[in-house]
Amino acid sequence: MPEKELVFGHKNPDTDAVSAAIAYSYLQNKLGYNTEAVALGEPNLETKFVYDHFDVKFPRVISAIDGEVKKVMLVDHNERQQSVSDIDTVEVTHVVDHHRIANFETDLPLYYRAEPLGCVSTIVWKMYNESEVEIPEKIAAIMASSIISDTLLLKSPTTTDEDRDALKDLSKIAGIDYETYGLEMLKAGTNLDSKSTQE
Amino acid sequence: MPEKELVFGHKNPDTDAVSAAIAYSYLQNKLGYNTEAVALGEPNLETKFVYDHFDVKFPRVISAIDGEVKKVMLVDHNERQQSVSDIDTVEVTHVVDHHRIANFETDLPLYYRAEPLGCVSTIVWKMYNESEVEIPEKIAAIMASSIISDTLLLKSPTTTDEDRDALKDLSKIAGIDYETYGLEMLKAGTNLDSKSTQE
Ligand SMILES: [Mn+2]
Ligand SMILES: [Mn+2]
Ligand SMILES: [Mn+2]
Ligand SMILES: [Mn+2]
Repeated sequence: MPEKELVFGHKNPDTDAVSAAIAYSYLQNKLGYNTEAVALGEPNLETKFVYDHFDVKFPRVISAIDGEVKKVMLVDHNERQQSVSDIDTVEVTHVVDHHRIANFETDLPLYYRAEPLGCVSTIVWKMYNESEVEIPEKIAAIMASSIISDTLLLKSPTTTDEDRDALKDLSKIAGIDYETYGLEMLKAGTNLDSKSTQE
Repeated sequence: MPEKELVFGHKNPDTDAVSAAIAYSYLQNKLGYNTEAVALGEPNLETKFVYDHFDVKFPRVISAIDGEVKKVMLVDHNERQQSVSDIDTVEVTHVVDHHRIANFETDLPLYYRAEPLGCVSTIVWKMYNESEVEIPEKIAAIMASSIISDTLLLKSPTTTDEDRDALKDLSKIAGIDYETYGLEMLKAGTNLDSKSTQE
């Protein structure tokens, strides 16, 4: 079995950071890698709603590599200060991202795939299609949720046609009506109810 | 027509830097961009042999952007010090590379595709296939030459199976026997004849 690698998104994770890590880790394992998706923090309100809604286990939370692995794959970020605290102790072998590149440097050649799309889960969706790997229903559900989250239900100015296509396709696989579900999900993230209770 | 962009490889160009720029520019134009491949220096002995052999026009040589365009695409490099002198005056919209990432930073999200293969022309070959764009015979010839150059005829330790597949396919399109041609080409690069004359 190949050497184990961890896959993770940025600190203070949002729905895309965690879900793209899970989706990319699953894909890479199908392609012969040996990876585990982890998160660099506890779920926020929106992400908790998503994982409860679809009964998906939130990944193990880590705050440092602490020598557990020698190699990692990053999703939804590349900047050192947004990553795990001891990122400089490991080799980054893969990056999948939709942000600018900054404060990022490697000693060795690597796989790096960035596209200026609304959501990393859209890029991972393209990669499943290119590799002809079937997307499991629950992974499709959390990827669709990521696109809803990052594009504010396809309304943010960063939204592209590829995000629209991905959300439609992933919603179909997951069996969700993304308009209805999306509003419910975004509302859970703003936590209107608990705020109005506290205020 | 979209805003014009220049496409170029690194300074002191080798065969891959120039040929990947030509191949990627042609592909991007087919996909709707408006690009021109340029070179950041005169051809070396090997590259001159290649372009003479296949009667391919060497691109326009520039040493600075000098306000000609606002956007550029980089191939076969990413580090600022290997690029055009005034790289900081333009937006890098695309990078295709097979080197480590260092001394590279953008303000905006971009397309970035790096893979740890023996040659950038191998990655560009994959992109033609993914986009289902036909590779013209002369472009196949200079891409094959790039793979021969970067991998020393598939013998360097950086050579991957994808480089092998690409060289075979490109040689077929170009109608060359890459073993015979490759030795001739590598020999031209070492300039054994002119050295022995001078010495
Ligand atoms: Mn994010
Ligand atoms: Mn994101
Ligand atoms: Mn080069
Ligand atoms: Mn190269």
